[in-house]
Amino acid sequence: MTEGWSKKVFLKLNPPAPEDAVPLQERILRGLGEKEAVRIRPAVLGEAREILKKSGWAATAVMVFDGRGWELLRLEAGDTVREHFGLCVDLGSTTILMELVDMNTGEVRGRENMFNPQIAFGEDILTRIFYTKDEPEHRRVLQKAVAEGFGELMARLSEKTGADAFSCAAMTVSGNTTMIHFLLGLDAFGVFQAPYAVETLAPDVCRGEELGLPFAGVVYCYPALANYLGGDIVSGMIATGIPQREEICVFLDVGTNGELVVGNKDFLLAGAGAAGPALEGGVVRTGMRASRGAVDRVFTEGGCLRVHVIGEGRAEGICGSGIVDLISELFLNGWIDIRGRIGEEALPALKTPEGPAVEYAPGLYFYQSDIDEFVKTKAAAMTMVEYMMGLIGLSMEDVGRFYVAGAFGTHIDKEAGVTIGMYPDIEREKIISPGNTSLAGARKMLLDRSNREKAAEILERMEYVQFGAVEDFIHRMTAARAIPHTDLQRFPSVAERLKERM
Amino acid sequence: MTEGWSKKVFLKLNPPAPEDAVPLQERILRGLGEKEAVRIRPAVLGEAREILKKSGWAATAVMVFDGRGWELLRLEAGDTVREHFGLCVDLGSTTILMELVDMNTGEVRGRENMFNPQIAFGEDILTRIFYTKDEPEHRRVLQKAVAEGFGELMARLSEKTGADAFSCAAMTVSGNTTMIHFLLGLDAFGVFQAPYAVETLAPDVCRGEELGLPFAGVVYCYPALANYLGGDIVSGMIATGIPQREEICVFLDVGTNGELVVGNKDFLLAGAGAAGPALEGGVVRTGMRASRGAVDRVFTEGGCLRVHVIGEGRAEGICGSGIVDLISELFLNGWIDIRGRIGEEALPALKTPEGPAVEYAPGLYFYQSDIDEFVKTKAAAMTMVEYMMGLIGLSMEDVGRFYVAGAFGTHIDKEAGVTIGMYPDIEREKIISPGNTSLAGARKMLLDRSNREKAAEILERMEYVQFGAVEDFIHRMTAARAIPHTDLQRFPSVAERLKERM
Repeated sequence: MTEGWSKKVFLKLNPPAPEDAVPLQERILRGLGEKEAVRIRPAVLGEAREILKKSGWAATAVMVFDGRGWELLRLEAGDTVREHFGLCVDLGSTTILMELVDMNTGEVRGRENMFNPQIAFGEDILTRIFYTKDEPEHRRVLQKAVAEGFGELMARLSEKTGADAFSCAAMTVSGNTTMIHFLLGLDAFGVFQAPYAVETLAPDVCRGEELGLPFAGVVYCYPALANYLGGDIVSGMIATGIPQREEICVFLDVGTNGELVVGNKDFLLAGAGAAGPALEGGVVRTGMRASRGAVDRVFTEGGCLRVHVIGEGRAEGICGSGIVDLISELFLNGWIDIRGRIGEEALPALKTPEGPAVEYAPGLYFYQSDIDEFVKTKAAAMTMVEYMMGLIGLSMEDVGRFYVAGAFGTHIDKEAGVTIGMYPDIEREKIISPGNTSLAGARKMLLDRSNREKAAEILERMEYVQFGAVEDFIHRMTAARAIPHTDLQRFPSVAERLKERM
Repeated sequence: MTEGWSKKVFLKLNPPAPEDAVPLQERILRGLGEKEAVRIRPAVLGEAREILKKSGWAATAVMVFDGRGWELLRLEAGDTVREHFGLCVDLGSTTILMELVDMNTGEVRGRENMFNPQIAFGEDILTRIFYTKDEPEHRRVLQKAVAEGFGELMARLSEKTGADAFSCAAMTVSGNTTMIHFLLGLDAFGVFQAPYAVETLAPDVCRGEELGLPFAGVVYCYPALANYLGGDIVSGMIATGIPQREEICVFLDVGTNGELVVGNKDFLLAGAGAAGPALEGGVVRTGMRASRGAVDRVFTEGGCLRVHVIGEGRAEGICGSGIVDLISELFLNGWIDIRGRIGEEALPALKTPEGPAVEYAPGLYFYQSDIDEFVKTKAAAMTMVEYMMGLIGLSMEDVGRFYVAGAFGTHIDKEAGVTIGMYPDIEREKIISPGNTSLAGARKMLLDRSNREKAAEILERMEYVQFGAVEDFIHRMTAARAIPHTDLQRFPSVAERLKERM
């Protein structure tokens, strides 16, 4: 049976009697029947008798694992074992996602998200880091911002689920190194500045109160491998189970950063690159988030581009999945060539003062430079994958599972992804969109504490690959800077499709 | 090498460099070179870099043992290893004694004492217990009172020694069960009321702040065997080393209560009785504390009683050691008989409206009832000892070491003690006055954490003897209610002395 970071045990104790006058502490411990010592703080013990008396000596022990052993967080009158909840968090620089999880069943009872309130102090991470540099007070401001964010999410979860999120006994957090530093009130300057010595990659378990959270329980933060390979990736490993798999897996997390793991039960290679924003539409002039008004699907009908707009209204821009579709369709229709160059005879092509472009929706243009930027980024990502596969003497064809984590992976069309060479041309069921693995890993950790040892083992096994140090990386990247690749033979299904369309 | 509850390690760390960019936490841990994990809380880590930078990466780690493992309490700039102090406390219901101890050398740098400020809420323990009954707020009042007392002692120690007592990292406390309950903010009603189920006999290690102490370090309280056999007695065992000795030892602690241990490396019997106040002069009409004006020595000169008065002024009363001397002299001079009855022909005897009495100093009377009360009490104490010795088939002659702990033991004259039958008639070097063993045991614990396991082992081994349950106890006590004993053969040296005086 798995055991989470908190547990509840219903105690039906005998009230003290002449023949059984053991101290209250011993009485509770005896009721708990733990083999190992359970710490009971004076304040908790001081309230225990009143609670037990009022409840007829029937109460529920709420226990937390403090990193070293169990501790009695409090007693609750009566049997509350069935109301046992925990919190898991994906702490992103842009978005914070929190779930309230039933610790008995593992069921997610509620999920809430919000923009990270730290955005007020800098949209991007670097601005926030500079805000705190040499300003301990500003570190506290950022910590307070995120703590208040957590509080708001907890309030919303309480309201929506009817459970009291504030009385949860354990919280697990997955986030990148900077975000974890800010949560802990630490200076994150080392993340970005040479010699890149951060404050911690493996923070100890602490109490919510230590972080200013409105929460008495324990907080576990996933440890990180390196500055740019945060706990969110380790969490992703726990979520996908890659480190235990037979097949060789590729794990690509497209977010603000692009993080990559290649491995299985025998090896784990990890690396990171600034691949994210471009793929998500961040550098595309009309790019936008996947929200109302975003083109999220592009297809060809009667020789013309057609689009689907989120919310079914007027198109206002294009999001990641739309971009992938668009480039795929442009390529399959022969409107851009293998280099991504917009052909002069392309149907939707036009010349604009800013150079060649494609009008993908009324008044909305996708420029040559947008295509170039996108292709460059996907080339970088794919080159990282290929390079890593090469390190172990394998090529893309040997990929057993290709995970694309995050919202990006969830929404892009697999076929379009293969067509533009963002995904390898492997059996489609091997291409997996596991969704938010950072959150899923945090949830798994919350419910099963043995994952802590697994996380430590992953860090032990994982080797960090510095792409900047690779000599022929630029050369390789140039080769990948084609649609789908300079070597079309590597993408037989795309070649097939091209033939069909012609 | 022994290890205390805190330790200091000087760290000369390498500043982060391109070839050595490990995180700060790891850098500190590496510097500590601990085999086991050392917990570093976010707040401590958050201040570490500033301290290290300012000190040229040379700082001292102050670590505490939290009951389960080591924790970094803070970093101190530079090398402060030689300024490493701890606090030990004898928490009595009347007096609090605190020492500031050099953790490197074991040397006591300062000792301060004060009346327990809880006296304002009841001179005796029972009054204080009733004060807190069903009044959680009053428990906090008592806790605050003792915490403020600790604070005052710490302030005095700081002033007198020049060391900062408030920055000590560890404190060990020895006290009876009620005093420890009050310190921890717990209801002590179970100590006195059936079914005598207290809150705890073995409190967990906690932080000073949890108890409202002006002190961030850890607090260890000696565990108790039973309600009336507190941690102070276990502390006394650690102080005297009785549980490891070959010889059979008797340990008598005369205080507000009388506690008794008989044992050695093979067995440990313990019991308690309300023996204390009478022996200390508490029930004697002119009895007083051993302070200015108290008769503390009585001797015979030229056939007359002579006294010594503390402070050399006018006698105002008599303290414990004076009483023992007085009764001894009265007996040796034949002025009281073996039953303690004042003879009519006794030189200093006179009849008063309150019955026969002895004028031991001008205008100060020691009454027949005072003698009776004292003899009854010493009889109770000696009967407890004899009874326990009997339990293992031995008699008083087999006592290898006879410890009389506390101020009482320190001040009474050994010969007088034997004469009145309060001490057995054994070789005088076997009668030991170890002083305040409660405090000494706390000091030993502070300096050597392995005593914690020893204390647990003592509790495991120690058997509690309920004298109330002994059938022939009253009968035995009557036999001991003579001076020195109904059986004078047991006191050959007293018989000898009597012969000399005649």
